[in-house]
Formats: sequence, structure tokens, C-alpha cells
Amino acid sequence: MDLSPVFSPHRVAVVGVSLSNPFHPANIIYNKNYYADGCEVFAVNPKGGELERRPVYRSIRDVPAKVDMAVIAVKAMYVGEVARECAAAGVRSMVVISGGFAEMGAEGQALQDELVRVCEVNDIALIGPNCFGVFAPPVVDTFFLPPERTVVPKKGDIAVASQSGAFLVDQIMTNFHEAGIGISVGVSMGNKAMVDEDALMRHFASREDTKSMCFYIEGLDQGVRRFIESARDVTRYKPVVVYVGGKSERGKAAAQSHTAALAGNQEMMEGALRQSGILEAKTESEVTSFCKILSFYHHRPLSKCTIAVISSSGGHGVLASDLAEEAELIVPGFSVERQDELRELIDPGIRDIAALGNPVDLTGSSADKDFERVLDYLLGHDDIEAALMLTLPYTPMMTSFVGTRLGKVVKKHDKPVVAYVPDLAKYGMVLEGFELNGIPVVHSIETGVQMLKALRMLGLYADSGKRCPR
Amino acid sequence: MDLSPVFSPHRVAVVGVSLSNPFHPANIIYNKNYYADGCEVFAVNPKGGELERRPVYRSIRDVPAKVDMAVIAVKAMYVGEVARECAAAGVRSMVVISGGFAEMGAEGQALQDELVRVCEVNDIALIGPNCFGVFAPPVVDTFFLPPERTVVPKKGDIAVASQSGAFLVDQIMTNFHEAGIGISVGVSMGNKAMVDEDALMRHFASREDTKSMCFYIEGLDQGVRRFIESARDVTRYKPVVVYVGGKSERGKAAAQSHTAALAGNQEMMEGALRQSGILEAKTESEVTSFCKILSFYHHRPLSKCTIAVISSSGGHGVLASDLAEEAELIVPGFSVERQDELRELIDPGIRDIAALGNPVDLTGSSADKDFERVLDYLLGHDDIEAALMLTLPYTPMMTSFVGTRLGKVVKKHDKPVVAYVPDLAKYGMVLEGFELNGIPVVHSIETGVQMLKALRMLGLYADSGKRCPR
Repeated sequence: MDLSPVFSPHRVAVVGVSLSNPFHPANIIYNKNYYADGCEVFAVNPKGGELERRPVYRSIRDVPAKVDMAVIAVKAMYVGEVARECAAAGVRSMVVISGGFAEMGAEGQALQDELVRVCEVNDIALIGPNCFGVFAPPVVDTFFLPPERTVVPKKGDIAVASQSGAFLVDQIMTNFHEAGIGISVGVSMGNKAMVDEDALMRHFASREDTKSMCFYIEGLDQGVRRFIESARDVTRYKPVVVYVGGKSERGKAAAQSHTAALAGNQEMMEGALRQSGILEAKTESEVTSFCKILSFYHHRPLSKCTIAVISSSGGHGVLASDLAEEAELIVPGFSVERQDELRELIDPGIRDIAALGNPVDLTGSSADKDFERVLDYLLGHDDIEAALMLTLPYTPMMTSFVGTRLGKVVKKHDKPVVAYVPDLAKYGMVLEGFELNGIPVVHSIETGVQMLKALRMLGLYADSGKRCPR
Repeated sequence: MDLSPVFSPHRVAVVGVSLSNPFHPANIIYNKNYYADGCEVFAVNPKGGELERRPVYRSIRDVPAKVDMAVIAVKAMYVGEVARECAAAGVRSMVVISGGFAEMGAEGQALQDELVRVCEVNDIALIGPNCFGVFAPPVVDTFFLPPERTVVPKKGDIAVASQSGAFLVDQIMTNFHEAGIGISVGVSMGNKAMVDEDALMRHFASREDTKSMCFYIEGLDQGVRRFIESARDVTRYKPVVVYVGGKSERGKAAAQSHTAALAGNQEMMEGALRQSGILEAKTESEVTSFCKILSFYHHRPLSKCTIAVISSSGGHGVLASDLAEEAELIVPGFSVERQDELRELIDPGIRDIAALGNPVDLTGSSADKDFERVLDYLLGHDDIEAALMLTLPYTPMMTSFVGTRLGKVVKKHDKPVVAYVPDLAKYGMVLEGFELNGIPVVHSIETGVQMLKALRMLGLYADSGKRCPR
């Protein structure tokens, strides 16, 4: 099925706008798109009339132009009839916001089945029901949330889809915005009665603006099985990150009443995801970390999984070593000869107090050039595949130029490097120095290790057949 | 040993100020205290002379006033001699910033032993060596970091001590500042040759301004064993949070070269910590979460560990249920009768779409009063011991007043409640509405669950003898 009408409609009808309640989901959707000027938008309500002096049409068939997309926010019992009107009007895609379908039991399931039947017969791409729908600025945004209450991540190359609208808003869009990750398009799938993870992955795989993708799914139904199967091919060229909700007993019960999700066996699911080359994020922060490193390094698997840890703090090196071991990354100790060579590279003032064994602790008296020289030396050796820089802008001699210096080293060696900078607004210049020069910044050592772990996981599935040693 | 001279000196000598390098640790310490006006500060360098027209004394014995505290930043080989001069001058406490002691091998160990001997004989409280020292504003701050490059958490009731200076700065002070947690005093212990975790815990336990404490330790040496033993008593009235670094093979090696830490058996250590009622934080974010909930609820153990999850999003309820199960918290399902009673309490407009089984999903169309009534009803029942509110300020009808409404409910029932609000600056009014009314806010569902987990862990050790069921 061609999903392009879902993401690039020219004319959108919003069915169910209230003539009295400005907070009604349909009104919020109508207004946000009217003021955004991305598509032409029409209000529909059987009562007709006017909304702020703009016409309200009694039916989608009364709209005086060919409508591509219909967004439906009327009671579940009326949605089937509206769908038939959409079919008659030649609509290509429908987003059904309304709840009250399969997630509410047998009666709702029947309404949902009828809705799907109408859409299938008439070749309408159906998103939902029971969803936020489609987020594809600057063209269209069907999320019924006032725009000033949410954030819009910058344009980027990660497509996202979620069985939960709020997960998409918070754990993806808000966190991506804060982490500076850009997205191409987003979809809240809800009950995913027709367009599901599998259909969306295939669409995302074909999009030129998309280099990787991220999904939130609940449970293991037939659609998810198809999705996992299809991923075997897709993940060879576009990484796929998945977070699975509803794994616990209470979580499964909640997922059932949320989006009628079917529970799956947890271990089986984890194994299946891994075998298809999917990066399973196990925590909210892994979702952000995995997607951020992919947005910087796209498809860059590690094969040896050996990393250098370079810090200005012994304690941070200890923490990073602990976390790296848990993440199955290797922090190889350095020979005395290598340590002697490193010692020659650094400022005489820190030669007696620096620890050079990996993790490298250049101490709080180190300067930008010490980091630059040590990183250049280490990335120049085959046994080091990536590096984690623990860069603390409060050490007296570090400057905001450090990212530019290290960025040049990274470009020279073309190996992935991640920089930790504590989370304070006043370190913004240091952060930008890194990110403008191609080095992603994290605000905890944990998330830095998570990023390199994502590249290790990519390596487990890479075509090369190489595997990271355990 | 009386540690009060460590935290409230009137006159401080900084030994080792450079006459040429303004970035020298001693110069930074001298300057930050000179400009902070908390204590009187004197510069010492054997060369004598002037520093910005202020006198530099050749020896601490030349300082024309009785000095309480000496901060030492000279090469390790000279520290013993300086210590003897301090003893002669009647100094009560010494902070030795310098490295080059036990962490550097046998020669350094000998220097450290001699230093300790001098301090013991002369009843001087020794902090360090190889440390940042003492952070006790507004009186004294010996961290050699320019103040404009760091942050100062607000004054509060948590005391902190760390074997790593940078862990104390980033993972504690910076993260506490960002999370709004206040501290009483902080100590970077370094090699903790004399004043160690045990001594500091006893001191913190006696401080009126301190209600709980947090430690970062590396390895399990004799001092840590004493600390764990003493904690059995202290944790009965003041919670103690510990993060252990250096657990992995590489981490142990790094800890050895960092602070001469001795490796311990990981499982043995975890068991010992738990049996002494210590809350072991396993991640950086648990450090913050545990300390934040303690700063709101002090010593409030859970015994049943049953929580209500109340959200405006089905997906968030699913996530919270999964995380609660992992954290051994119970999200009990609600009977049909209870669900019917809850349905009567909420707005008619959401009765047909809300899921009321726990997790409660009031949907994106809910308003403040729905949350207020549902929380009031649930906290009024004995089988619910605490609640996690998943409050999304982008739902159209939520207002910034929601925290005040819920705060009144929490005060009425006196049960711990945590609120999740996504991490955006523009939600600041919502956040403050909660926190000003006694409800701590978290920015991820994970950290909200971590907070309630901390209270469950307190319950495992509570005097009541009650235990949370598994």
C-alpha cells in the first residue's frame, strides 16, 4: 500500500469539530493546521454552520474541493458512516482519532472491523483508530495537542512510529528535541487496524529523507511478527530501534485496555528482535541514546568493540569502565610502552599525575591540547575502534574550543567518538563545539556508553559476519 | 574525632599558591575564598612576595593570625614538612589537594603514612590527600574549580561525600542543582588516609542540618567495612545512599590507580550494604532519584509497596507498570466496583473512554479536577500506599494549578506521591506547582519509579519488621 498520501496531503478535512468546545480534539487539529498553513483544511460537522466565520460543512462530500485526507474525531459508532462518505468523496487517507474500538471489547472490535473493511474496499490508508495520527510538518500535524504546549524536534533523518501517542510525544519528540535529534516524520498508530509497524517500516525504508527509524510497540501480535520478519532485510541498510512496552503482567493488562495489544512471550520477543538486527532499547534513555548516535553516525557497526576512555577525572574513568563492561564493550589496558608514548604527548605539568592505562585520566590540570594529542594517538591505532571522551568544562584550562580540536581528529580517523559534558546550560558553547564538529554529546556517562553499545549491537548483525568478542 | 573544624574554619591558609600561574589549584582555591568572604584566607609560598598586592607568607607560621584550616597544594614530597609546620602553628584541620601518594605506589604510600602520623600525633583532621576537599558554603570551599564554571546546589539537608571529586561535582552537585535538591555539606575524600566514609557518616549523623546522606565509594577496604557496620545504627534514623564504583575488572584497575582503592567482592558488598539498611543506587540516575525523594519525604518507608498509577496516557501507564514490576512495586488491579466508583468521580465526557483498572488512564481529555478526585479517592484506601502521577501538561485542559490541587490531597492523606512532568523549560509553572506543594517532580517515568523504589528499600529495613511482599 502506498502511504505517501498519509504524509503529504494537500487538502485535509477534520470531521467532528465542535461548534461550542474549543478544546475538542477536532478543533485543536483544525486550528493548528489552519494556522500552520501547511495544507488547506476544512471543518466538518453534520450541524453545519460557522466556526469563527469560517464555514463548517455538513459532510465531507460538501467540501468544495477534492480532499486527500480526512481526520475523524466523532464517536466510534458514527465512524463507519463517515468512512463511507470519505470513500464517496475520493479521500486517500484517513486518521481516526476516536477511541471506543477494539480496545473496548467485542462491540468496539465489530465497529473496527467494519471500518477496516470500508477502507480496504476503497483503497484508503487508515491510521488508527484510537491514536494521535500523523506528524509531518510543515505539511500536516493531526496530534490534538495545542502546539504551544508541545515541542517540534528539528527536521532530521529518523522516522518514528508508536503504539502510544504520549510515548511518541514525551519519550520521543520531547526527548529528541532536548537532545537535538531530528526526525523526518512521526506516526501514532493507536490500534493500528490497517497501517501497522510493518507497513510503516516498509514506507520509512523507501523514504529518501529517512536513514533510521524508531518504534514503540506493545505486545507481539501478527503485525509485529510480520514487522520483525521484514526487519531482517531493512536493518541491513537502515537501523531500526524498538522499545517494547507491556512486558510485565500488569503492563500486559494495561496494554490490552490501551490499544487492544496481545501479550507475547518476553524472551521469545527479545530473541526475535535481536535476530532481525533490531536494536532493542531497554530503557527510555536508551531510546534517546540509540537514536542520537544513529543521527550522527548512521550505520557504523563496531566489530572489535574496543574503546578508549579519556577523561580529566579518575572517578569518571572508573564509572565508565564499570558501565562499559556491563554493555559488553572492551576497555583494553595499555602496555607500559604505550603509556610511555602517551606521557611524551602530554604537558610536562601533568606527566607525573596522569593515569595513562585506559581509562586515561589526564587530571583536572589538563588542557584541550592534551585531549587532542591523546585522542589522535589512540584513534591512530587499529586496536582502538571508538572513544568516549569525559570532558569536564569546569577544569580550569578546558576551553570552548575543545570540540573543534577533537572534531578535526575524529574526521581524520573516521572512528566514532562520543563526548560527555555535564548538563548545564552554561556549558552550551562547549556542547556546540562538539556537535557542530560531528561529535555527539551526552549528559551522563551511562548514556555515552549506551551510544557505543548501539554501535556494538549493529556490529552483531553487520554483513561482515564479524562479531564482538564476549 | 571532632570534624567540626573541617566545616567551619574562621581562618584558612592556602599553601602552595603560585606567583606566576593563576590556574594553579592553590590560586583558584585562594581566590574563590578571598572573593566569597566566608572565611579569612591567607596565601603561603616559601618564596614569599605578593599576589595582586596581597601578602604571600613564607610559612604558615608567619601568618599573623591563628589559622584553623590549612589547604595544601604542593608536591607530595613536601607535604610532610608542611604538615609539621601546620602542627606547630596549631592548625586543627588539613585538606591535602596534592596527588602522588598511595595511588602512585610504595613510595607514595610511605609519604602518605608519614603525613597521617604527623596529623594523628597533633590531632589534626586530615582530608585527602589527592582530593578536592571540603565544600561548605558560605564558609569555605576548597574545590579547585573556578566558581563560574560549576554550580552550587541550594542549601538543603543531604550531606554528601565522595572518593572521586568529579563524581561529587557532576553526578552529585550538578545533578542535584538541576533536580532542585539541596545539600548541607560536601566532602571529596580522595585517598581518605585519615577521615574516611565512616568518620564522615558519624559526623553527618550528628549534624542538625542533615537528614540524610549520600556516598560514592570505590572498593571494599577496612574503612568501608567499618562504614557499613556503623550504618546499621545510622540508617535507622537517617537514610544513607551509596553508589559503588570500580565493580568491574577494568573499573577495579582504574580505581586502584585513581585512589589506591582495594577491590572487593561485588555480591558480598551488595549484601552487606543491604543488610545495613543502606540504599544502594545502581545508576547515576538512581543517585539523584533516591536523594530527591529523601529530600521531600525524609524517612518514609513503604511496607505494602502498593501504588496507584494515574495518567492521562495509556502508554505511560503501560511503561510505569513494567517498570514498577521490575522495581518490585505492586500495581494492584482494581475491582469492578472500585472502577464504577471512580467512574462516578470523573467528568462525564471521559467516562466512556477512561481506563480505570490501575494504571488509571484518564485520557488526554481529562482535567485537573479529575486527577484530584481520583487521587483523593485512591489515597483514602488502605490498600494504596503511594501514587505515581503521570501528568502531561500538553493535554489541552491541564492547567498549572494541578500541583496545588494535588498537593492538598497529599497533605490530607500523608502518603508519598511523585509526579512525572516531561523535561521542558516551558512546563516550569506546572513543575513548581507540584514542588512548592510538597510533591517531587521527575522528568522520566523510570526515575519516578526509582523514587518509590527507594521508599520500598527503606521499608525492607524499617524497625516495624514489616517487609514488602515479593
